[in-house]
Amino acid sequence: MDSSSLLSRVRVVLCRPSHPGNIGAAARAMKTMGLSRLVLVAPRRFPDAEAAARASGAVDVLERAVVVETLAEALAGTVVSVAFTTRSRTYVQPFRTPEESAREVLQALQAAPDTQAALVFGNETNGLANEEVWQCAFPATIPANPEYSSLNLAAAVQVACYVLARTCEAFSPQAGAIADAPDFVPVSHEAVEGLIAQWLAVLERLDFYDPAAPKRLEARLRRLLARTRLERAELDILRGMLKAVARKIP
Amino acid sequence: MDSSSLLSRVRVVLCRPSHPGNIGAAARAMKTMGLSRLVLVAPRRFPDAEAAARASGAVDVLERAVVVETLAEALAGTVVSVAFTTRSRTYVQPFRTPEESAREVLQALQAAPDTQAALVFGNETNGLANEEVWQCAFPATIPANPEYSSLNLAAAVQVACYVLARTCEAFSPQAGAIADAPDFVPVSHEAVEGLIAQWLAVLERLDFYDPAAPKRLEARLRRLLARTRLERAELDILRGMLKAVARKIP
Repeated sequence: MDSSSLLSRVRVVLCRPSHPGNIGAAARAMKTMGLSRLVLVAPRRFPDAEAAARASGAVDVLERAVVVETLAEALAGTVVSVAFTTRSRTYVQPFRTPEESAREVLQALQAAPDTQAALVFGNETNGLANEEVWQCAFPATIPANPEYSSLNLAAAVQVACYVLARTCEAFSPQAGAIADAPDFVPVSHEAVEGLIAQWLAVLERLDFYDPAAPKRLEARLRRLLARTRLERAELDILRGMLKAVARKIP
Repeated sequence: MDSSSLLSRVRVVLCRPSHPGNIGAAARAMKTMGLSRLVLVAPRRFPDAEAAARASGAVDVLERAVVVETLAEALAGTVVSVAFTTRSRTYVQPFRTPEESAREVLQALQAAPDTQAALVFGNETNGLANEEVWQCAFPATIPANPEYSSLNLAAAVQVACYVLARTCEAFSPQAGAIADAPDFVPVSHEAVEGLIAQWLAVLERLDFYDPAAPKRLEARLRRLLARTRLERAELDILRGMLKAVARKIP
């Protein structure tokens, strides 16, 4: 598949960015690597003259940026999402390198036409919250100096986008296709949300779940499903099972 | 050879930088990738408060930066030097990619102990002059969007240093153990087998599964669970759910 059409399907999501200059610099970094979809989750200041100045020749990316209130909105329509975060965080699945995450993103996009992917970055000071990481398919970290691993936000975007563009061999003399993915058909964020809603409804009827006192059940279910990255056939099976249970409950 | 000692022998040379903010951001980019030798050729403004602000936790790199008048002085003592420039320029030898130039730099340093290498970057507006490119061992270019290939100076430094650190496998993810979440208790193979048996038994009672004609259901369930790597709490929740279903089936 044409690498430029793959890159055009990758969003960069910035969660709660504090400094408009970083938003502009991230837009510039994206455009140099052929990405154009910028999504801002609750930016402190945007639009802003400083963002435009730092965007340089990428003001078109800023102008088309989408501003939303939550990460869930930013992920709507994606089949795979990567949470870029520091390794110090404890987490239940291995952190991908930028190279590994690029391969997974490109395979998912090739397997599911007309879908999108997201590279997700946190706030300059605090990074991504745990709840934000759990909403993404998997975490990734940029290998860095353990004594000083703090990349500037736009610099991290530049590295992630560079590796993505290199992995699909965009802009290189050896431009070529990524090997076809196996029969894995990823499912959308909305489809997983639908499954969770159906699952919780069945658990409520089973007296296993009380929406008034959810405790950690929903969070655990979300974390499990986000980590798993369901494929189409699996989603269909799980939904079919839940339907069968619902039919049998008196 | 130890990768950190190799990286400590690589200079970043900025020729005639216009904006002190870019000098600071370049210092930060270098330090995140384990580089510490910054050489400035005829900077317009240095030292400068803006450079220090953008350097963030890498002010030590700025404080040790060497200021010289000419690129020739900046290259003294190096055995290999890479001129980062745009590909539009005509030149007598092929442009290396960042990956190719990183391999050449590391090979040269390994072959010649007690020597240094240089990654050379030009002015923000005009890049490197022809005379400057010719003083370097070879030119390299960062593959980029032909419609907008203008990386910010510090972003280019970040990419070049990232690729160098990755090529010598500094800070690789395998260098440190991935910490599991504090509450992550992995489950045994037998425990997963128990879950599968319980799950299939419930599905059979739901008329969702016929052991005489299993088709692909069991295989898909196994593949899903194998990929997921369940933790103890998740296993308990899934078994509890199945038990609740079994109780309610007439």
